[in-house]
Amino acid sequence: MSLVAEPVARAVQLGFAAWMRSMQQRVEQALDARLPPANLAPARLHEAMRYAALGGGKRVRPLLAYAAGELTRAPAARVERVAVAVELIHAYSLVHDDMPCMDDDVLRRGRPTCHVRFDEATAMLAGDALQSEATLVIVEDVLADDPARNAGLLRSFALACGSRGMAGGQAIDLAGVGQVLSLAELERMHSLKTGALIRTAVLLGAGCGEPLDSAEDAALARFADAAGLAFQVVDDVLDVEASSAQLGKTAGKDAIQHKPTYVSLLGLAAAKARAAALREEARAALAGFGDRARRLAEIADFIILRHH
Amino acid sequence: MSLVAEPVARAVQLGFAAWMRSMQQRVEQALDARLPPANLAPARLHEAMRYAALGGGKRVRPLLAYAAGELTRAPAARVERVAVAVELIHAYSLVHDDMPCMDDDVLRRGRPTCHVRFDEATAMLAGDALQSEATLVIVEDVLADDPARNAGLLRSFALACGSRGMAGGQAIDLAGVGQVLSLAELERMHSLKTGALIRTAVLLGAGCGEPLDSAEDAALARFADAAGLAFQVVDDVLDVEASSAQLGKTAGKDAIQHKPTYVSLLGLAAAKARAAALREEARAALAGFGDRARRLAEIADFIILRHH
Repeated sequence: MSLVAEPVARAVQLGFAAWMRSMQQRVEQALDARLPPANLAPARLHEAMRYAALGGGKRVRPLLAYAAGELTRAPAARVERVAVAVELIHAYSLVHDDMPCMDDDVLRRGRPTCHVRFDEATAMLAGDALQSEATLVIVEDVLADDPARNAGLLRSFALACGSRGMAGGQAIDLAGVGQVLSLAELERMHSLKTGALIRTAVLLGAGCGEPLDSAEDAALARFADAAGLAFQVVDDVLDVEASSAQLGKTAGKDAIQHKPTYVSLLGLAAAKARAAALREEARAALAGFGDRARRLAEIADFIILRHH
Repeated sequence: MSLVAEPVARAVQLGFAAWMRSMQQRVEQALDARLPPANLAPARLHEAMRYAALGGGKRVRPLLAYAAGELTRAPAARVERVAVAVELIHAYSLVHDDMPCMDDDVLRRGRPTCHVRFDEATAMLAGDALQSEATLVIVEDVLADDPARNAGLLRSFALACGSRGMAGGQAIDLAGVGQVLSLAELERMHSLKTGALIRTAVLLGAGCGEPLDSAEDAALARFADAAGLAFQVVDDVLDVEASSAQLGKTAGKDAIQHKPTYVSLLGLAAAKARAAALREEARAALAGFGDRARRLAEIADFIILRHH
């Protein structure tokens, strides 16, 4: 079993900004290599899949997978498959979420959304096929040598994507437009819509490596849940405070669509305070891991202190 | 390793019609048991998933999986997971295919299509979540004890669903509306759109059991490809000859949408002759298996001789 490959091992010496850039390049290359080429038939579908998945994004989920894999000294090739798979799932969810029957958005990562650039049918199929591609990446080889442990990891991946995870969160989000949600209901929605996949990135990234005990697993899950929620709180704050140009997507849409947000429920100042509290929760959950969890803590800081 | 469970072993004694009914009930029960209950939140999404997957359909793909599993004496629980997974993928593809941006169809299995009964956003998410559910079913435990063989089966499953399989075939189908296709192009489209999943049902059902040699594997693939194409030829014939009531879906749509079909390319008589030739091909491919392949041959007959 090969341990962490050279690039990751060296990256530990890097400052966070350099490490992040290096990992972002790495997942971009891996996605590029894995996705079918744009000239392979059906070319329009493959173009749309590549358009949706390549060339942008903060790659927060892959960063979390790489950092969690560092913590457990996971084999680089396995962690990379986790990083690619969660990003493909994320990309598919954005394509479908942007469609007219869902959020009806025209701008994403500073470019026209997939159905605007191509057409609705192609966007729907591209999202469908990106999900299948993620399945292919995650199943084509084992993540853990022990068959039962491997099946457990794959099972948690599939659960995080479906109706008890991300797709379920999108359905609750959809039902909530124009409704008054409680803070608990809002957090439940986000814990599924974005939280489930973020948790999966962390737990599967770590799961590729040396086994953790159950207290450590629970601590990582607490970290992932706090970081995931913080990501959403900050998103809500930025939707109010940042411009479309800074965000690369349409700013101010939540208020226009009467979507319940942390800002609409708590007000701006309290939403910012909640983000700061979640940052502390995330860091506290990592305390027992010492320096092995440094990258994860730095990613939480990046998530919470970002401006776009 | 448990061999084929009692119900399947006994079923071998049954005539085909009784066997088919028994297997159809079995997959219906398995789907019902696996899908999240309709009262679990988000309830509307779970209702839509159940509406799309339960209560109808010929269940051709599960029948093929069960029959192929009989051929290799596969453990019943594993074959059942294959049967459920391919049917969930088929159900998701119908939901998305029926949507306004694709075929824009309002009738399926004699009932309103999913987006008509619910709404477009719910239908899109239900399709997405049905795909994730299929992944969950297929990965949550092994299909074969040997890890490399297991990974190969999972890999072929994911490939059959994505852009190099079913989703790719749908994209080619979409691009072909109003175009003049050659017979070879039409067959290529169908070999992806419906053929890939039918082939997977056969090869994965068989793959759960005693290993076949490469000639036997190739023969099963030839059978699946012939049966899959025959299914499509007969569909095209029935679209012309049967009523919507018989089909449970809108009849005559191919001509209205100027879709290339076997009938539009070959004429009705030659399309029927092609179906008969494919039936012979399918039966010839099974010749080497003797009586072990009886159910597969009977399914091919059922596919080709059906009236709806």
